[in-house]
Amino acid sequence: MDQQRLERVIQALRSHRLDGLALMPDANLAYLSGLSFHPGKRLTLVLIPAAGGPPCCVIPALEHGRAEAAARIPMRYFAWGDAEGPTAALAAAVAAALGPDARGRTLAVEHTAMRVMELRALEAAIPGLQTRDATPLLAALRMVKDAEELAAIERAVQIVETALQHTIAQIRVGMTERALSRIVSEAIIVAGGEGESFENIVASGPNAANPHHSNSERALQPGDLVIIDCGARYGGYISDITRTVAVGEPGPEARQIYDLVLRANAAGRAAARPGASGAAIDAAARAVITQGGYGPYFIHRTGHGFGLETHEPPNIVAGNDEPLRPGTTFTVEPGIYLPGVTGVRIEDDVVITADGARSLTTFGRELRIVGG
Amino acid sequence: MDQQRLERVIQALRSHRLDGLALMPDANLAYLSGLSFHPGKRLTLVLIPAAGGPPCCVIPALEHGRAEAAARIPMRYFAWGDAEGPTAALAAAVAAALGPDARGRTLAVEHTAMRVMELRALEAAIPGLQTRDATPLLAALRMVKDAEELAAIERAVQIVETALQHTIAQIRVGMTERALSRIVSEAIIVAGGEGESFENIVASGPNAANPHHSNSERALQPGDLVIIDCGARYGGYISDITRTVAVGEPGPEARQIYDLVLRANAAGRAAARPGASGAAIDAAARAVITQGGYGPYFIHRTGHGFGLETHEPPNIVAGNDEPLRPGTTFTVEPGIYLPGVTGVRIEDDVVITADGARSLTTFGRELRIVGG
Repeated sequence: MDQQRLERVIQALRSHRLDGLALMPDANLAYLSGLSFHPGKRLTLVLIPAAGGPPCCVIPALEHGRAEAAARIPMRYFAWGDAEGPTAALAAAVAAALGPDARGRTLAVEHTAMRVMELRALEAAIPGLQTRDATPLLAALRMVKDAEELAAIERAVQIVETALQHTIAQIRVGMTERALSRIVSEAIIVAGGEGESFENIVASGPNAANPHHSNSERALQPGDLVIIDCGARYGGYISDITRTVAVGEPGPEARQIYDLVLRANAAGRAAARPGASGAAIDAAARAVITQGGYGPYFIHRTGHGFGLETHEPPNIVAGNDEPLRPGTTFTVEPGIYLPGVTGVRIEDDVVITADGARSLTTFGRELRIVGG
Repeated sequence: MDQQRLERVIQALRSHRLDGLALMPDANLAYLSGLSFHPGKRLTLVLIPAAGGPPCCVIPALEHGRAEAAARIPMRYFAWGDAEGPTAALAAAVAAALGPDARGRTLAVEHTAMRVMELRALEAAIPGLQTRDATPLLAALRMVKDAEELAAIERAVQIVETALQHTIAQIRVGMTERALSRIVSEAIIVAGGEGESFENIVASGPNAANPHHSNSERALQPGDLVIIDCGARYGGYISDITRTVAVGEPGPEARQIYDLVLRANAAGRAAARPGASGAAIDAAARAVITQGGYGPYFIHRTGHGFGLETHEPPNIVAGNDEPLRPGTTFTVEPGIYLPGVTGVRIEDDVVITADGARSLTTFGRELRIVGG
């Protein structure tokens, strides 16, 4: 499996006339090699030569054993210790991957993962280095999920739904956002998650008007809407769900925007099918809200791809006209945000199927009135 | 306070003849402005002009409200929406920070935080841009902690000690590393932590020979040593502790290396005082292990600074000859790792005082025999 993924990368590098790919320790590397670790401040990268041959891994000595044991594909390792530093190991890896004279070569690098530290180290090792953004190439490779990946995602979805069910049942007037957030975090672990896919968002009352609210000590009040946005990690893959609940009876405008967002969510999902674009799905969801008179208050894209990472291509947004293929997973999450007042978001995880789309999220979407 | 920190940055920029500083949304930005968020895939950065005037913040529209509410210093905001993209906002921010003709200017950028995405965007906005690594300049600024910072760190230390005490009391033969890891995570929250400072490490039996072990489904066995490395976050600041415990009676070599590491830890702490260098502290700890015959098995530096981040300067390692100043916080964490057999690490959080050093960590260091 992983060797096939590597072969597809090499073919893509060749078709783009690139000499190689420099990968950070991130989701792309995990996808290709099974290696999973967080980038620290010690130089760690993998060079994949377009010419073929094993990837060359520059790695701190103290990570070497674990990496070699965990890798699912053959790699050459160039380990370095804290005392010597990474320069010689990187030079040896460059020579092994690109040949003795690497001057002026062109590498694909991940613009949203590689840091200036790694770029400058590569520039020092490869005089005249040219770079291209590897993100689109790798995203195209990872966008369509295989059966094994979808199974992990479905489990991650089930886990977060179990956790959310548990959480919503605990909601009471007077609880703080942070207290509710802790319940979410713990419930995801208890339900079998390897962790959260991101720091959950619990946004209550006027805080719900901020799509990226930081959980606060605000206590829930009767009449609040509460947006809960959370996700679980399972088998390396993630889920991402948002539900908005009402603490006691909400006001009439809250009900009105809830119904609009609910219909926008349904319209977005209904527009999803093979060949539809992210732009078309966004337009379908957005039209409902615009026609309802709240267009200016839907201030973000309708959704985003997900898989090994919480945010992956495809963007479900105007301008993304690429036709979606079966196996592509993404969120549909329209929202309305009334500054200083309240907000609503309803988010599902969707997969394009052979003849349409399926919501992996099955959690009820009707407005729940809780703990009032 | 934060305005003073900003003034110190501006002075440092001027003394290094830099035109400005470009900050990612990270710990340095939090230190200067109180703004705290994770870098996503939407361009977010703050330009601090060496000429003075308010920092210029390029920010996705949906983060704008939260940032402006949270910032503790005056800033100018250049918000951009998903439909338009960040190019115009960045150009306006560059003009505001550096003047209408920014060609050939030199910015300090954070080599371990800024990504190629931000660098390429800045290069496009500033033809002929020169960059320098801002990390040493900012590290020098943040290395010495003030009383408020030390108070947050002390609380983070207390929290993780409470959590570790609880965790160690739960250890039983047959528990898996992952089960124990979950106990640590939950106990840190229960004890009042805002979260973990890093994914905790529970490394048992032969896994303890890997300093960066990934927690596994391995079940604890009688005679195992178990390394538990964990930390709590409080008030934005972190703690970091490691203790090694024995599940039932350990073998004679395990006892022997434990005693060596214990003595190395004490020697490292004893060498810490104003004017001592990271190299001197490393040498003091390492000498004990080398003289004990296990030098080749102490395969990492003796410690690292910490504060807003888990890994900050100073490095407690050969080659770092900079004298430490009172208020500097760092770990002392010698270890011995016998591949395929076992390992020991004992880690404390230390602060340089006016006339010596103090271990903020007070958790007992003697070998505990538990759950056998």
